[in-house]
Amino acid sequence: MKVIESIKEMKEASQALRAEGKKIAFVPTMGYLHEGHLSLMRKGREVGDALIVSIFVNPTQFGKGEDLERYPRDIERDKELCKGEGVDILFVPSVREIYPENYQTYVDVEDVTKNLCGTSRPGHFRGVATVVTKLFNIVRPDIAIFGEKDFQQLAVIKRLALDLNMDVEVIGMPIFRESDGLAMSSRNNYLSQEERGAARSIYRALRRAKEVFDEGERSAGVLLNEARRVLEICPLIEPEYVKLADMGTMEYVDRVEEEALLAIAVRIGKTRLIDNIILRKM
Amino acid sequence: MKVIESIKEMKEASQALRAEGKKIAFVPTMGYLHEGHLSLMRKGREVGDALIVSIFVNPTQFGKGEDLERYPRDIERDKELCKGEGVDILFVPSVREIYPENYQTYVDVEDVTKNLCGTSRPGHFRGVATVVTKLFNIVRPDIAIFGEKDFQQLAVIKRLALDLNMDVEVIGMPIFRESDGLAMSSRNNYLSQEERGAARSIYRALRRAKEVFDEGERSAGVLLNEARRVLEICPLIEPEYVKLADMGTMEYVDRVEEEALLAIAVRIGKTRLIDNIILRKM
Repeated sequence: MKVIESIKEMKEASQALRAEGKKIAFVPTMGYLHEGHLSLMRKGREVGDALIVSIFVNPTQFGKGEDLERYPRDIERDKELCKGEGVDILFVPSVREIYPENYQTYVDVEDVTKNLCGTSRPGHFRGVATVVTKLFNIVRPDIAIFGEKDFQQLAVIKRLALDLNMDVEVIGMPIFRESDGLAMSSRNNYLSQEERGAARSIYRALRRAKEVFDEGERSAGVLLNEARRVLEICPLIEPEYVKLADMGTMEYVDRVEEEALLAIAVRIGKTRLIDNIILRKM
Repeated sequence: MKVIESIKEMKEASQALRAEGKKIAFVPTMGYLHEGHLSLMRKGREVGDALIVSIFVNPTQFGKGEDLERYPRDIERDKELCKGEGVDILFVPSVREIYPENYQTYVDVEDVTKNLCGTSRPGHFRGVATVVTKLFNIVRPDIAIFGEKDFQQLAVIKRLALDLNMDVEVIGMPIFRESDGLAMSSRNNYLSQEERGAARSIYRALRRAKEVFDEGERSAGVLLNEARRVLEICPLIEPEYVKLADMGTMEYVDRVEEEALLAIAVRIGKTRLIDNIILRKM
């Protein structure tokens, strides 16, 4: 596995792979890898001839007072995990490499970023869209793979690639969960033992709403109340949003017709966690 | 000369040229071509193996009340001119092709768009940066050529290509002028005979400031006053700005050290015209 820090070198390596006719699969991450990330890499190995992973804790997608500084990092462990997954190139640029002095260009995706995390984290998706545009231009992947835990992020990136006429297919992969249902996230690492216990309620709330949906309920009001009631049982959980949104546009819906995304964001102590479940007519 | 309207076909044609190892030169325009545009094409022929020109009157770079609807168009004449310059591919997408339904992604270049036309035309450079990002992604040129009449636009596009890690070299070409000094512009076509006469004062004002600069004057206040006094002689001219700016950042300067851009925007009747001259120590 080649580890590359410079943009110039990354471009050359990627260009060389393309010249060999290789299909490039790309998994952009912020590191501190878990099984969820590894599942994206396995998908990448399956669909591409060459697998490139990036690790970059992107400052522009963190708001003021968010956890940029304390975001967990363990590059040596991450390298070993990438090697284990057969990653060909690990791209680990510095902040200065990605945002040099006088950096001033940003990408905004509008409608799809209005709701959910776009409301609670102003500027977050601007940072995401900007860094992903840059990473796509540097790596030039044929296929890029993202997790569905950040479902809105996936929608933003699909929109961005389409709107800016990028030659990349953006693929989402199902959420990877701990045995008790908690969605895997590098941020789970922040939780105390007590908080970790409380965090189980998030998936329980999603499951509860899905149960009621599967029994035939279609009203957003009823479904969301079912989810909220599960969250309310646990005093450590402070819900930020519990919403039902269209899978493509991320607009809130009053009723589920064919399918919709039930998305939850909560705070547990200082930690912000998100999760979601797809409600789809069987 | 191939004329292409669809993005898909344009991408394929460009991909085919790259596969042949050809260096692609690209001249994006809004059409109604004049000698200035043709000089960009000649440069393109000189530096590239294949020459692609686009004609697209980009709605997102026009503000409300601006001249989008009346912007001059003559595609048949433009085609003949392109053929005459040995253009290989003329790309003429429709508005719907470039901005399909639900389009929502925009590119913002910040600092360099604050002054000059960025002040008087809010949103203009957002539209320019967005369409140029898209055109670059569609055409994938090795070299793109723009005129220096829109000097700030050139600075924006250079910044954009650098910041977003695009693989394109952005080149500026000197302003092409009519025999009486008026900078060539598709908008000159709007001018009545009387207004056309008045428009000469713009270049006279620039020349006057340059004369005083060449005599040793370095103060922005003095240089700009010299230019303004020439403009004031003509009652048909309504100055919008007369400014001295840093060539890279477009920040206003109080004094010229090595070099600076003297930039003018005026209104003559309903027509807005811009022009500039570089003041550089000899």
